[in-house]
Amino acid sequence: MLDKYDDLKASSLKCAFSPDMTALIGDLYSGCLSFLDSMNREKLISKVDNKSYFAFSNGRKLSRAINTDLYEPSFEYWQKLSKAMVKNDISAFSSQSINKILYTMAISFCASVDLIKDGDQKTPGTFYECFIAYFFSWRVGVEPVKSIQILNLDGQDTRLPTDLIFNLGTQLHKFHVPGKTSTRERSIMLWAHQKVIDGVYGVGRFMGTPVLLAETKVDKSKKEVVEICLPDQWRVYQLYIAKLSRIYYLDVPASYKKLNEDFPPLNVKPFSDFFFEWSTISPA
Amino acid sequence: MLDKYDDLKASSLKCAFSPDMTALIGDLYSGCLSFLDSMNREKLISKVDNKSYFAFSNGRKLSRAINTDLYEPSFEYWQKLSKAMVKNDISAFSSQSINKILYTMAISFCASVDLIKDGDQKTPGTFYECFIAYFFSWRVGVEPVKSIQILNLDGQDTRLPTDLIFNLGTQLHKFHVPGKTSTRERSIMLWAHQKVIDGVYGVGRFMGTPVLLAETKVDKSKKEVVEICLPDQWRVYQLYIAKLSRIYYLDVPASYKKLNEDFPPLNVKPFSDFFFEWSTISPA
Repeated sequence: MLDKYDDLKASSLKCAFSPDMTALIGDLYSGCLSFLDSMNREKLISKVDNKSYFAFSNGRKLSRAINTDLYEPSFEYWQKLSKAMVKNDISAFSSQSINKILYTMAISFCASVDLIKDGDQKTPGTFYECFIAYFFSWRVGVEPVKSIQILNLDGQDTRLPTDLIFNLGTQLHKFHVPGKTSTRERSIMLWAHQKVIDGVYGVGRFMGTPVLLAETKVDKSKKEVVEICLPDQWRVYQLYIAKLSRIYYLDVPASYKKLNEDFPPLNVKPFSDFFFEWSTISPA
Repeated sequence: MLDKYDDLKASSLKCAFSPDMTALIGDLYSGCLSFLDSMNREKLISKVDNKSYFAFSNGRKLSRAINTDLYEPSFEYWQKLSKAMVKNDISAFSSQSINKILYTMAISFCASVDLIKDGDQKTPGTFYECFIAYFFSWRVGVEPVKSIQILNLDGQDTRLPTDLIFNLGTQLHKFHVPGKTSTRERSIMLWAHQKVIDGVYGVGRFMGTPVLLAETKVDKSKKEVVEICLPDQWRVYQLYIAKLSRIYYLDVPASYKKLNEDFPPLNVKPFSDFFFEWSTISPA
């Protein structure tokens, strides 16, 4: 099953959104669904208000936590969404239904890797970035780049490696899109990378819109799920480092959702909202 | 041997520099020296110009890389330095000799943990921060704090957790000191935390002087050592995020040392230099 993952990586490097990528993402999803179907589900004790979680188990190991309300394993739903994307018309879908499809696809791959490999964080991380690049690229209609030019008066210009950068063209939106499965205690890096891009191109030129998967953590002995969140620190970063325009999640953490109601403005939303609001977002 | 580590953690929380800490640091060092003395040394293939490395081995596992020129296992040297510190007179020591003592102490602990535990990065990291806090605190004569106050007009003031903060008093030096065994691809966090502190207290108020151990990485199958460095990115961070006044290392990476000769000004030096220059450093 994971051999398709290498094809996906190679294909995504050539073109983030392509018929080839559509086929590979579908193949991987269907492979993960069959694999997970043969595994057991174990209910986890949720320490997060109003969310319930389970994990897949092969008897020996537990996968990461899976949000019960968002997990709808259905290859048919993906086929419908995929066809609508090709026709460039997703009006038949609600944001919520798209979010469930994307969450299920992403978490299915990550949970499969959790069970197949030992302590491998790199494979889910790389897959997730290709996965987000695919949908983002479809929506905005341009391919991402992964570095920016830095002016250097005294010598050769250098290029700085970055997360996904989507430049829609003159006078049009430009997005800076870190795609990460979680941020934990590394979340300050989202704002720091935005600060560098603001410094090089000017504040507001690129909108920072990270797309994250979840912030859950499972205590495997107690079978408990918590969300590792630092909302007070996020407010400080938004005030003192740089402004992120949106922070998208597939599984929006409860305590980050509350930031929407507080100062400074922080927009934490399901990624599927981007599909509908992308052309009207303005810098924070 | 590692039971003293728990005592060290607890003691450091109470007081970063104290007779109690002096005893514990000495006990741990002597424990590590005896432990490592019973291990084998394996020469590593150094891919770093002008540096040679070896690793300790218990037959089954390899420790991290150890710089042959900096490693001088001698409890007597530590006793001499320790006595000089109590007398507050280190004039008999060169910066180089102090650096070797500190490097040997820090790397001995980390290498011991590499062999005793499996994939434990937290224990070396916590030890190293207490270790740096001990010497820094002795040198500047004040205890560190690990959070700063953030003003909040609309509600209660909040405190932001930080790395070590040393405030020498009104009109005197204030230092912001991350103590990390390595930074790798997380190095941007050093500048980002500095940016937050600059934002809250004003640029130049706290001098950023991280104290790092090394940036080596061992390929355990090939027995090769490399240094993972991103000098071009460091220059960008120093230009566009915040200014760090010094970046101290116990084993200064070759490619970061070269940054001292380039624009923007970046001072990358052995930590022992701080013992002699601390009162004359000015913001970058």
